[in-house]
Amino acid sequence: MSTLVNTQIHLASRPVGEPILANFRLVELPVPELGDGQVLVRNHYLSLDPYMRGRMNDGKSYALPQPLDQVMGGGTVGEVVASRNASFTVGDKVVGMGGWQTYLVIDGNQRGVLQKVDTTHVPLPAYLGAVGMPGVTAWYGLTQIIAPKADETVVVSAASGAVGGAVGQLAKARGARAVGLAGGPDKCRYVVDELGFDACIDYKQHPDVRSLSMALKAACPNGIDGYFENVGGIILDAVMLRANAFSRIAMCGMIAGYNGEPIPMTAPQLILVNRMKVEGFIVSEHMALWPQALAELGGLVATGKLRYRETVAQGLAAAPEAFLGLLKGRNFGKQLVKLI
Amino acid sequence: MSTLVNTQIHLASRPVGEPILANFRLVELPVPELGDGQVLVRNHYLSLDPYMRGRMNDGKSYALPQPLDQVMGGGTVGEVVASRNASFTVGDKVVGMGGWQTYLVIDGNQRGVLQKVDTTHVPLPAYLGAVGMPGVTAWYGLTQIIAPKADETVVVSAASGAVGGAVGQLAKARGARAVGLAGGPDKCRYVVDELGFDACIDYKQHPDVRSLSMALKAACPNGIDGYFENVGGIILDAVMLRANAFSRIAMCGMIAGYNGEPIPMTAPQLILVNRMKVEGFIVSEHMALWPQALAELGGLVATGKLRYRETVAQGLAAAPEAFLGLLKGRNFGKQLVKLI
Repeated sequence: MSTLVNTQIHLASRPVGEPILANFRLVELPVPELGDGQVLVRNHYLSLDPYMRGRMNDGKSYALPQPLDQVMGGGTVGEVVASRNASFTVGDKVVGMGGWQTYLVIDGNQRGVLQKVDTTHVPLPAYLGAVGMPGVTAWYGLTQIIAPKADETVVVSAASGAVGGAVGQLAKARGARAVGLAGGPDKCRYVVDELGFDACIDYKQHPDVRSLSMALKAACPNGIDGYFENVGGIILDAVMLRANAFSRIAMCGMIAGYNGEPIPMTAPQLILVNRMKVEGFIVSEHMALWPQALAELGGLVATGKLRYRETVAQGLAAAPEAFLGLLKGRNFGKQLVKLI
Repeated sequence: MSTLVNTQIHLASRPVGEPILANFRLVELPVPELGDGQVLVRNHYLSLDPYMRGRMNDGKSYALPQPLDQVMGGGTVGEVVASRNASFTVGDKVVGMGGWQTYLVIDGNQRGVLQKVDTTHVPLPAYLGAVGMPGVTAWYGLTQIIAPKADETVVVSAASGAVGGAVGQLAKARGARAVGLAGGPDKCRYVVDELGFDACIDYKQHPDVRSLSMALKAACPNGIDGYFENVGGIILDAVMLRANAFSRIAMCGMIAGYNGEPIPMTAPQLILVNRMKVEGFIVSEHMALWPQALAELGGLVATGKLRYRETVAQGLAAAPEAFLGLLKGRNFGKQLVKLI
């Protein structure tokens, strides 16, 4: 018997509307002995992401629901601390779907569940952000759907976040104009001054479509050619009012309230009038492109050309509260939980 | 001085909401002498199309507004009756944008304004329908946006119309299941029995989204992979509720009320949940593909494999009333006006 204790956070109940702390439960279990082919990973960082809110519901969605009374799923980075698998050695740094727990026991032969990563030039937690799922999400939507030409204008909501920040910087790297939307003057300053966007609109200053549309007009004097959608609602309506002919919208975010209430698109006829393309995507369904995306993202991070910010909660027990904060936009950049 | 009289219908005033007969004016003018390079065409048939309603407004749209006090624009087929252009001979059958008038004087050297057509196997008015703009519209949306695989399900609204009928038959020719929506039992019977669709739903029997969605579920047991949108409103909402993962919507029709009032899309988050692609298009912006489309459409009509129906109004003076009827769905198949 191992004497190691694995601390986990389970989904105890499904939220009705906004999640609360009581939806989660902290559980301690012994770490089992490793079987043949298995690897024991000490998780160092846990990634918190908006898609997890959707999985907490039981309804039909693109992701399977998170089972009740089981460890919350989620991306992790960590270090191999024991191995009965020839492909993994103690000390290897790895990224995988380790979940909200301190240890992960996993069959290292399952394809794709655990990837060794090189931390020589890229910090370990970046594999959960700019060089991980959020970065590839940004890369896919920008390059495969929006595909901006030089001098086109790309708008992205949640621009100070892990995905949005990468979208704008990848757009700039392609010669496009990047305009962000973010909540509050601090985030907007960061988006322009540190991430290098051409402009950033504080959506909290624009409570209605008309006001937001005027702000977009000022920030996008040549109209909008591409929009990376992380939010939905009046931002989408306002962007569509400024969309150019043949513009593209990549739909990535929860295009409803985070808590499930549908938010209509006011004027879908603009899709026809402006001959737009509106396309939804889930990055995990395009694994064939991940190597190409990660190569570009890793290179940009290693050379300091792709910048990002992290908000780090301390300790697994802090994960539920940090997650509720993420849903309210309290994080600044990629939300992580540091476990060690 | 020519003694020929050209009868025209002008736009006398812009409609507020639903157009009325008083928005049009009948005008008689002498046919001018031909200049060098000009051709005189006797228009035989005038095409009436829903897009003309949009052009009657002054607002921003994809088409230039129809000018007031000038001949209404529109597609025509006819015969060359005089020519001072070496490329055209008296007796040539031609298709062009001749407008709502009995004669057309035009510079035959302008590229694309007047095309000679072969009526050996394809009747002249078919060049305004199945082998003309409506047919190419169907072909483009179906093959370039929906691109159905065999055994996928394609739904089309206004299925008994010139565009919708071709969409379903082209889908069937590609091995897909074709399901139409049309108004009334006669049109639905025609869509299934004469056009060969697998099913047709009478939308007039389903006044709300829930009822329409249940009817679509019954007609599309494997869900919906492609939707050719000619209408908008609750039909679009109902189709989206039955859309499969990776489904495609080609937006072709006036995705608002014909008279301009916006109709929201209720649940745009389904674009993300189902990873859909929604794309608007205007067929006149894809001229490079017309020869390929017309070759397929002409071959299918000549061999009796692409069927269609026409509603023919008699005489130019009947055009305004026929147009108002078209906007109310009173036509059955392609709406034409026979001028001679």
